[in-house]
Order: sequence, then C-alpha cells, then structure tokens
Amino acid sequence: MLKGHGDDTYKYNNIKINFSSNVYNHFNQEPLFCYLADKLDHIASYPEPEPYSLEKSIAAMLSLRKEEVCVTNGATEAIYLIAQTFRRSKTAILMPAFSEYADACRNHEHEVCSFYSLQQLPERAQMVWVCNPNNPTGMVFDKELLLESITKNEDKLFVIDQSYAPFTLSPILTPHEAALHTNIILLHSMTKQFAIPGLRLGYMTGCEPMIEQIRKQRMPWSVNQVAIDAGHYLLAHEDNYRIDLYALMQERARMASDLNALGIVEVWPSDTHILLCRLRSGHASALKEYLATEHGILIRDASNFDGLDSSFFRIAVQTRKENEQLIDGIRKWMEIG
Amino acid sequence: MLKGHGDDTYKYNNIKINFSSNVYNHFNQEPLFCYLADKLDHIASYPEPEPYSLEKSIAAMLSLRKEEVCVTNGATEAIYLIAQTFRRSKTAILMPAFSEYADACRNHEHEVCSFYSLQQLPERAQMVWVCNPNNPTGMVFDKELLLESITKNEDKLFVIDQSYAPFTLSPILTPHEAALHTNIILLHSMTKQFAIPGLRLGYMTGCEPMIEQIRKQRMPWSVNQVAIDAGHYLLAHEDNYRIDLYALMQERARMASDLNALGIVEVWPSDTHILLCRLRSGHASALKEYLATEHGILIRDASNFDGLDSSFFRIAVQTRKENEQLIDGIRKWMEIG
Repeated sequence: MLKGHGDDTYKYNNIKINFSSNVYNHFNQEPLFCYLADKLDHIASYPEPEPYSLEKSIAAMLSLRKEEVCVTNGATEAIYLIAQTFRRSKTAILMPAFSEYADACRNHEHEVCSFYSLQQLPERAQMVWVCNPNNPTGMVFDKELLLESITKNEDKLFVIDQSYAPFTLSPILTPHEAALHTNIILLHSMTKQFAIPGLRLGYMTGCEPMIEQIRKQRMPWSVNQVAIDAGHYLLAHEDNYRIDLYALMQERARMASDLNALGIVEVWPSDTHILLCRLRSGHASALKEYLATEHGILIRDASNFDGLDSSFFRIAVQTRKENEQLIDGIRKWMEIG
Repeated sequence: MLKGHGDDTYKYNNIKINFSSNVYNHFNQEPLFCYLADKLDHIASYPEPEPYSLEKSIAAMLSLRKEEVCVTNGATEAIYLIAQTFRRSKTAILMPAFSEYADACRNHEHEVCSFYSLQQLPERAQMVWVCNPNNPTGMVFDKELLLESITKNEDKLFVIDQSYAPFTLSPILTPHEAALHTNIILLHSMTKQFAIPGLRLGYMTGCEPMIEQIRKQRMPWSVNQVAIDAGHYLLAHEDNYRIDLYALMQERARMASDLNALGIVEVWPSDTHILLCRLRSGHASALKEYLATEHGILIRDASNFDGLDSSFFRIAVQTRKENEQLIDGIRKWMEIG
C-alpha cells in the first residue's frame, strides 16, 4: 500500500483543527456514540458473514434491489475487491486521482496507465477509474460528457468513485441510473458522508451480474459488528447528517479567494469542500510540519498523488473561524520563511 | 465465500446458549465495553493506515520484532492475504479443515488439493495449510512430527493456523520458534482468544522477509479504530482473560463421555474445548433446527467442512449446566425422532 495518507493525526498529539482528511467534522456525533455504546455487547457474537441486513436497508434507500448493493470495509475494500475480481486487466486511471486505485490494480497484476481527459480515453483500456467528485481537486466532471463516454464505450468497465458525492451541488450519477448500465460500478463512502472514518464503512452499487461477480471474491466478516450497527443507525438518522451545502460552497469560495490573496498559494477550481493548493515556493511537507507543530493544524501533503509534486497540499474547508486560523498560520509561515 | 458458517445467531431471535462458534463465552467483558464506550469519539478520525502501534505491542508480548507481526481484520484477512500473496501456488490442505483456506486459495487461482496425514504430504505442493489445534476436530498434531515435516520440506511454505492455541494444553509452536524458520507463517486470532468475534482482530507472525512480502498486499485501514482500541486494552488486561484449561479439558472429557453414552452420537477425540460429533442416524441440520427453535440452543452444522457429510455437527464446550441442557435437548430430539 501507499505510504503517507491524510489524517495522520495519530502522529501528532496536539492537533486542534484537522483540514487533512476530506471529512466534514461538524456533525453532532453524541447520539451515535450513545447508541453504539449501548450495543457494544454485540461484539461478543460474530457479525453476519456478509452484511445482508445493511445491504437491504441501503438498497431500499436508493431505490435499488439488494442484489445491486455490496457493503464493504470502507470504500477501500471495494477498490481492492474490484481490482481483484478483474485481475490482470488493462486499466486506465483518470488523473489526478486517489492513489489507491493504482495501488490496488498493481497488487492484482493490472497493466495500469494514466490519462488526463475523458475525451482521450485509451482505446485498449478494459477498465476505467474515475474519481468524481475528484480527489484531490474537488472538481466534478460534466455529467452528460461522462455518460456519453460510458455509453460509447460499452466494452469498458467504468468504476466511478462517488465518495465525495455528499459534498457537491453539481449533478452526478444516481445509483439507480448507474445500475441500468452494465458497465458502471459506483463507489460510496459512509465514512465520508457521516464522518466516521475510524469505523470503515462503504459500499458499491451496480447492475446485479456485476455486483454478484465481485461479491464472490469477498471474504466473510470483513465488516465488523460495530460498523454494521453504526450503518443501521446512520441510515435511520440521515436527517441529522444534512449539510448546508450552499453555505459550505460559499465558504469554500471565500476560502479559495483568501488563499489566492496570500500570493504564495495557487488554488484549483473545486465543486466540493475540497481545495487543492500549490505553493509557488517552498515544500508542502515543510508547511505541513510547521502548521502541525506550531499551530496544531493538520493539512494534507498531496505530493504523493500521482501527477502532483512536492508543492501540492490539500485541505477540506471547515468553519469560517477555523479556516481563518489556517490562513493566519500560512501567513506566519511566509513571514518566518 | 463459503455459505453456512457457525454462529448464525443472527438468524434466530431466541438463542440462549451458543455452542456453535468456538468462542469461550464466559469472560467478564464489562470492563472492555466500558473502555471502548469511552473511546468511541476515536471513530471520528482515521485509524492508522496499518495498525503499527498494535503490531509493536503484540511483538513485545511475543518476544518478536515488530517486523515479524502483521495485524489483520480477523485471522480471515490473514488467510486471504496469504492466498493472494502466493497466488497461483500448488496448495495442499490437511483435512479436515476450516473451509476458508480452500475458498481463499481458489479465489486467488491456486491449484488446491487435500491430504489427510502429515506423513503423506503431496510432493508437488508449494504451500501447506495446517489448522492446529484443528477445527473442526479439536485435535493437536504431534509437535515433533510437525516440526520434522517442516524442516524436511524447506521448499514448501507452511501456514499453520493456531487460532485455537489458547484452548489447549498440548504443545504447539511458539511464535518465537516459528519465526526462526523461513517457511512458517502462524495465524493467530484475538477474536477467539478474547471472545470478541464481532470486532474482527487477528494477526500473523513469521520471519521478517515473509511478513514483509505479505504486508505489501495489505490494503490501508483494514482494521478499524474500535478493533485497534480493543486490541490495546486486551493486551494490557490479558490476565482477566485466563481460562482454567485443566477444568475446561475435564469438562470436555465429561461432555464427550455423556454424548457417547447417548448412543446416537459418535464423538471425535479432542485436545481442546471443541468436539466434533457424528450422528449415527438423522441429519445434523435437523438436530440443529430442533435445538434452536425448541430449546434456544445453537450448535454448528459441520456438514459444509470439506471431507465431512450431513451427519456431522460441532460444539464448543460451555459450562457444566449449559452442557447438560444440550445433552437433554438431544435426548428429547431422539425421543420425538
């Protein structure tokens, strides 16, 4: 696996504001914690070998049949299972992208190549990975363009990672419309949507024969009981996890403008709460270390994303007050630099 | 994956005594539950991408270096990772055995064969799986014989699943002595040892180059934060999880004798708390259904173990009083049958 993921809070003991993972940290999780605390005696029994009950509930929520849903130990397990099921494929990854796609595919002996625009899809590819909304840029691809590409290339399997779907107002594929195609798998992250990255809970959706094929590769009990219990609770209490996306997008725009105004930072366009930034001078790793140790602020060094270099970092927009502390921190780093 | 594992309590709503999984159900887990309840806010952050801190603690406990330990999402993930790392091997499984070895190996394109005695190890095998103590028989292989076989076959990799090690007094390989060989991987189950099957926590140990090779195939965050927290707690409180093995072995002997005395049940010899039983007439599935619905007692239908048929069931010895209720239940089934 790749070394150097985000949210490495465990390496520091003083982090007060975490911009480094793409998780929205402002939900009230107390009711969830109480619910789980009350259910901890469940860990004395085995979980369902496959999380059937959760698959059924998710299917109901998405107007799918349960055969079109496969729950996994985080979206990461879905990525690895797909790579495994279609081992030794010729695989094209739309860049930049979450590095685990390439890692998982290489683990399973794919022939991996990169491409940079949906209009320039490699002819030989059997499998295409698209992160949409994109990590690390936060951009959303034009839905019509994406659908056109999928329809024109029925011989290619499109894996579309929609982990960041809850954080955009731009149109993206719905699970129901994706399942009508035989060549789409959608990835979903409950970790991201509900801000529970410590629990690991994700799922994939797609047409039944495809999901069935992948399900056969799944090991038993990969999703543990606490994650299953949390999944049921979160589906039943989704209303408590609504984000005011208009306000979040406004704050992202303001934050992007403040970062650009610093002069030293170049900000990529984004359709989500994620901002990819490039330092015009200096290294992202140095800025990260300074902010963590001096200000208790964690950002994501994005230099290990394929196609990016040591000048890139990534942040997830937080509250206005927290965002201002980050701007202040960068300003101070510029002064001492 | 295989259909029909044990501990399918989730299918019934009235189970009072669970003989079906090989877990010892009589620890006081309240202190663990309290500890975990207090740490639930940890799920708002990502776990370590690989559970380094837990690997370090386990290594210290076992007199190993941390490079010789790889923590996994239950021993099951270890089984699948090993099968994946050594994909397309010629693989021999000592029968009878936990069916996941064959399932995992077939998933990863091994050529799988069965064998029935260490003295008849297939010449062509590159990889050998031994469940020791054995599931489903509960027997422990002679340690000298096993070591002799390993030393004589340095070209073959021995995967020895010691998940049931905490439940026997018979000599088995220690992690330290196994790591001195270049062709042994040991599997360990914290799930089993600490009776927390809902959490999924296991690890493998072996010489550094071997563990390193497998670790490269591991996906990030496969062990979630609640399992990591539990792992640290359990290592620090191992003294609260001591089993009086002499008493348990005595109770197992008494139970075996009572079962044999029924006339209808034939019991295999065992060196652990597990008893493999064969019905002289009738089907294990019918007995299981009767005991579950009429008595709230769950046993394991063992007919889906390779090499066994529909007459086999398996139980894990519980308290004397509970064991007597099972004997009573079988007696009543015989009367109505």
